[in-house]
Amino acid sequence: MSILPALKHKRNVEVIVLAADLAGTFIFAIQGAEAAIRGELDLLGVMVVSFAAALGGGVIRDLLIGATPPNAIRDWRYPALSFAAGLLTFIFHASLHGLDSPLLVALDAAGLSLFAVAGVEKATLFGIGPFVAALMGTITGVGGGVIRDILMARVPAVLQVDIYASAAFVGAVVVLVLRRAGLPSTAAAFAGGVACFALRMVAVSRGWHLPKASGW
Amino acid sequence: MSILPALKHKRNVEVIVLAADLAGTFIFAIQGAEAAIRGELDLLGVMVVSFAAALGGGVIRDLLIGATPPNAIRDWRYPALSFAAGLLTFIFHASLHGLDSPLLVALDAAGLSLFAVAGVEKATLFGIGPFVAALMGTITGVGGGVIRDILMARVPAVLQVDIYASAAFVGAVVVLVLRRAGLPSTAAAFAGGVACFALRMVAVSRGWHLPKASGW
Amino acid sequence: MSILPALKHKRNVEVIVLAADLAGTFIFAIQGAEAAIRGELDLLGVMVVSFAAALGGGVIRDLLIGATPPNAIRDWRYPALSFAAGLLTFIFHASLHGLDSPLLVALDAAGLSLFAVAGVEKATLFGIGPFVAALMGTITGVGGGVIRDILMARVPAVLQVDIYASAAFVGAVVVLVLRRAGLPSTAAAFAGGVACFALRMVAVSRGWHLPKASGW
Repeated sequence: MSILPALKHKRNVEVIVLAADLAGTFIFAIQGAEAAIRGELDLLGVMVVSFAAALGGGVIRDLLIGATPPNAIRDWRYPALSFAAGLLTFIFHASLHGLDSPLLVALDAAGLSLFAVAGVEKATLFGIGPFVAALMGTITGVGGGVIRDILMARVPAVLQVDIYASAAFVGAVVVLVLRRAGLPSTAAAFAGGVACFALRMVAVSRGWHLPKASGW
Repeated sequence: MSILPALKHKRNVEVIVLAADLAGTFIFAIQGAEAAIRGELDLLGVMVVSFAAALGGGVIRDLLIGATPPNAIRDWRYPALSFAAGLLTFIFHASLHGLDSPLLVALDAAGLSLFAVAGVEKATLFGIGPFVAALMGTITGVGGGVIRDILMARVPAVLQVDIYASAAFVGAVVVLVLRRAGLPSTAAAFAGGVACFALRMVAVSRGWHLPKASGW
Repeated sequence: MSILPALKHKRNVEVIVLAADLAGTFIFAIQGAEAAIRGELDLLGVMVVSFAAALGGGVIRDLLIGATPPNAIRDWRYPALSFAAGLLTFIFHASLHGLDSPLLVALDAAGLSLFAVAGVEKATLFGIGPFVAALMGTITGVGGGVIRDILMARVPAVLQVDIYASAAFVGAVVVLVLRRAGLPSTAAAFAGGVACFALRMVAVSRGWHLPKASGW
């Protein structure tokens, strides 16, 4: 009897991870495809980069927490979704020019939030302690972008953009704190995602910066 | 009684994976060593790059499908072969100048075909579904080259070269389709390898291109 | 009864791995932070690079030998230590200018030696054969630096610096040979570390070079 709520809780978390992961995959695949098109890669290059950008973060997380084979490999929906998003972007990218930049920033922040939440939830599910679980949320959120930039032979944007990985880390911490405080997993996940999204958007609009070391 | 053919089939597949993997390792180690020598690296750098180029694709595949430790680590013949190939290239590279470029392209295509076949076979052996297994064949084929180029701080050639990863993907699909059609594993592997090799060679000789997104 | 010495031996090796790993983590985190500060990254970038530089080698080793989740994830002391070292470097980096370059080279050589010993010990503990175990020691020693340089979009220093990975390999081989010769694990680990450290320092002070392939 007493195991039923626990089971239901686990079910909930798994659904949250799946939904957040798939939505984030779609957003980051589009972003990766755009970066590849701007880098003048051909159709194949666009597909590869959108695949890596969308699934890289989750794959690194799954390898690190020992969840092998990673979801991106075990579940055909992940690669299929990333390729579909890459192909759609390739075909319709001209129309994307019309999109204004604030919308793109918001989409990116949404992908980051989704992945940060999915990452911290899944790490917790695999028995990882809170500090490292928050790191796993961060890595899930920024890992794909890092691989995308490495493939394009650039210094990863996340190392230079202000309040990006930090927003993912804060969102993951919010999830963990609210869960510890007794909130249902769905509510905690939602609040964490909103915290990450809001922090990222405010940081962009106000031009917040992290300090640099002086004197060099 | 009925289990004997299944066992024999599994044996066959394992021998195919081993033979194709070792042959591909040798070819890609030579290629990696050449890239490193051209990049003016010293002996150690040449050995490291030839090791990474030869074994990177298989290691990524094995980590992703959960076959840990990867063959390249479990079986000393893999690293030993890659180091031997790297050393031979380092010593005799001057003679390699004499080789004409078509032969080098053919060798590269052979390595790609061997790894694509080995990758799809091994993924299937580990219970991976067909779509993702074909991706694993592709990653096995191109992964080493990607790591080689990342180590040399270049945009990976595979993202810019036409019909390369696609040839590996096609070869892997041929293996899967022929197996499903009931062909013995050895025949399917051979046909898939030939398909990948032929597609790559024809694409090079005819200058086939994949489309680029227009308008940027 | 006869199992007690074996157990004690295993205990010893585990303590050696932990101590060497943590000390190496601290040193390489400082180094990574310095590289990031020089690259004008902000606080977050400094933290990420020092994390990757300190833990990258060990994570690659653990993934390869199948020790998942890697220590760096399972044990919160690893990431906490790397972040602390990164933060301290960020705050006090101006004072580090005062340090003379020989001291920095010696610290780096110490980190390399610690990681090479920890790597070969841990691989042996996981039943990896001697040749590959020595490679794992080398990868543990140089992996973090490779990831650090890839993140900064540079050709990894280890591919260009003379007698660096080779020193790690030699140190790992010394550990294995002395263990085989019957020395207690602590003594073998110590001797291997000293061998790596001494070889690296002598190579730097005498300007030893590995050969380059001629004729290109």
